[in-house]
Amino acid sequence: MPFAALPKRLKIVEVGPRDGLQNESRTVPTEHKVELIERLAAAGLPQVEITSFVDPRWIPQLADASEVASRIHRRPGTEYTALVPNLIGYDKAREAGVDMAVLFLSASETHSRKNINKSVAEALAVCSQVAARANADGVRMRAYISTVFGCPYEGDVPASNTVRIARDLLDMGVEQVSLGDTTGLGTPMQVDRYLSTIFDELPVARFACHFHDTRGTALANALVAIDHGVTTLDTSIGGLGGCPYAPGATGNLATDDLLYVLDSMGIETGVDLRQLLEITRWICGDVLDIDIPSRYAKAELASRSRGEVKYGVRKS
Amino acid sequence: MPFAALPKRLKIVEVGPRDGLQNESRTVPTEHKVELIERLAAAGLPQVEITSFVDPRWIPQLADASEVASRIHRRPGTEYTALVPNLIGYDKAREAGVDMAVLFLSASETHSRKNINKSVAEALAVCSQVAARANADGVRMRAYISTVFGCPYEGDVPASNTVRIARDLLDMGVEQVSLGDTTGLGTPMQVDRYLSTIFDELPVARFACHFHDTRGTALANALVAIDHGVTTLDTSIGGLGGCPYAPGATGNLATDDLLYVLDSMGIETGVDLRQLLEITRWICGDVLDIDIPSRYAKAELASRSRGEVKYGVRKS
Repeated sequence: MPFAALPKRLKIVEVGPRDGLQNESRTVPTEHKVELIERLAAAGLPQVEITSFVDPRWIPQLADASEVASRIHRRPGTEYTALVPNLIGYDKAREAGVDMAVLFLSASETHSRKNINKSVAEALAVCSQVAARANADGVRMRAYISTVFGCPYEGDVPASNTVRIARDLLDMGVEQVSLGDTTGLGTPMQVDRYLSTIFDELPVARFACHFHDTRGTALANALVAIDHGVTTLDTSIGGLGGCPYAPGATGNLATDDLLYVLDSMGIETGVDLRQLLEITRWICGDVLDIDIPSRYAKAELASRSRGEVKYGVRKS
Repeated sequence: MPFAALPKRLKIVEVGPRDGLQNESRTVPTEHKVELIERLAAAGLPQVEITSFVDPRWIPQLADASEVASRIHRRPGTEYTALVPNLIGYDKAREAGVDMAVLFLSASETHSRKNINKSVAEALAVCSQVAARANADGVRMRAYISTVFGCPYEGDVPASNTVRIARDLLDMGVEQVSLGDTTGLGTPMQVDRYLSTIFDELPVARFACHFHDTRGTALANALVAIDHGVTTLDTSIGGLGGCPYAPGATGNLATDDLLYVLDSMGIETGVDLRQLLEITRWICGDVLDIDIPSRYAKAELASRSRGEVKYGVRKS
């Protein structure tokens, strides 16, 4: 059976303020970003990726990175992280006082060149520079490997690429490597196979998974990852975001959708589902004016208007 | 691991023309229904639920049931089925020459009364009347049990209800019982538990599963069902449909989303995914003018406009 050995607890890393908002066409005012991050932390999310310190010419949606980082009221116990592409970004992130610098690179050569105009080896060299500084400064690090489960240009990407890159990152002092299905090409059995290969070589405790729901497989892939012993999953509030290769496609696995299922499995996260729904209603409805991507949130918020239906939100 | 023993082949029952269209607000002209059914059969779907012979006052979207059934060109080897609520509906369906009469009733008393104004025992009595006639006429039967994995009024529904009802239906000569998650309240572990109970009592070979993606769990639930040995799954082209209890919510598991994953697992269905995508583009875009519910279809159709991306549709 698929659910033989469940973890008691799972950590949800909320990436909506960064991965979600950087892929929405509408730029969100800084004050709403600050409110979003503060409400997510208040709902119990233990780690929030708040922004990205990349050059604003590349991601204008997140041009206010330093301002966002400086304006948020920090909640004790919540970790606030940000993407850092290089030493320039690292310096800004450090100045802004983020709890973790999040490095990123790709498992696919073509995606690496198209995305950051560097080979994988060159990207690793940049990570190494940043890591040396972060280690000297005592700044913690996380890292994404993107296109682990498929590349929009190359198709299948060998799991051995990921093993090699992840090993280098862990050797640099990165705490946790998040395996990214950047354009949602992963399918459950393939994820099963890839994770087996990766975790044969490297300890699962050092990994998170980061699934996109581009083709509807994110939740199933997440359950496969849980079955492999992964206890950190990255998600986006309401399912915010999208895919630069498929305009209009679905974005990250929705925090709401994952939490609903984890709650039903009795896996603790410390996150309050009802508070999440209110945040989703606000950010998708009031701020972005988009249809809610999370199917769970969409159904729950719609069914509440129907008084006679008692079992919208399931208890177990 | 979740995927220890995969079936070589799986049967997809296409319910879009009935369960999909009955829940869309726009009524589709008869000629488009006929075209939809013919294209689905041509794409390789082995069984298509074409309509419902319920009183048109209840479901005006399907008031042209007899006309649809008489106008379709039948493909040898494809089974054309229709919903039959009682003897009146059965007579019409028989006259229209459907291959299978599809009975339906609910595992929950409250849902049964609200949906068809009958207790479960009264509904079983009607099924028994219809079954006696169908057996005498040599007409094959299928049956839905709805709200198996949760009721919008009662919440949890004991699996023992389903076992009792299913046993009665099988005793009446019904070939296959389809276990319906009518409002998408099922979650993977709960489906796992329920199917264990049901298949401890009754042979899995006589069952199909029918999941709705109202809360985003349909694909994961389907994978759990496959793991239990279920080899027939009901789906709707493009994810057509909705939920009467949550306006705007997602409908059935999308045929496209399921087939994409089955193809990736090497499970044969005889259905052509590329043809499906064209049908989805046509029925959602040209006919209904709705956003495509299937996330797979939405992403694939969007990514095709981006020439440089080669790996939209995955090969494996």
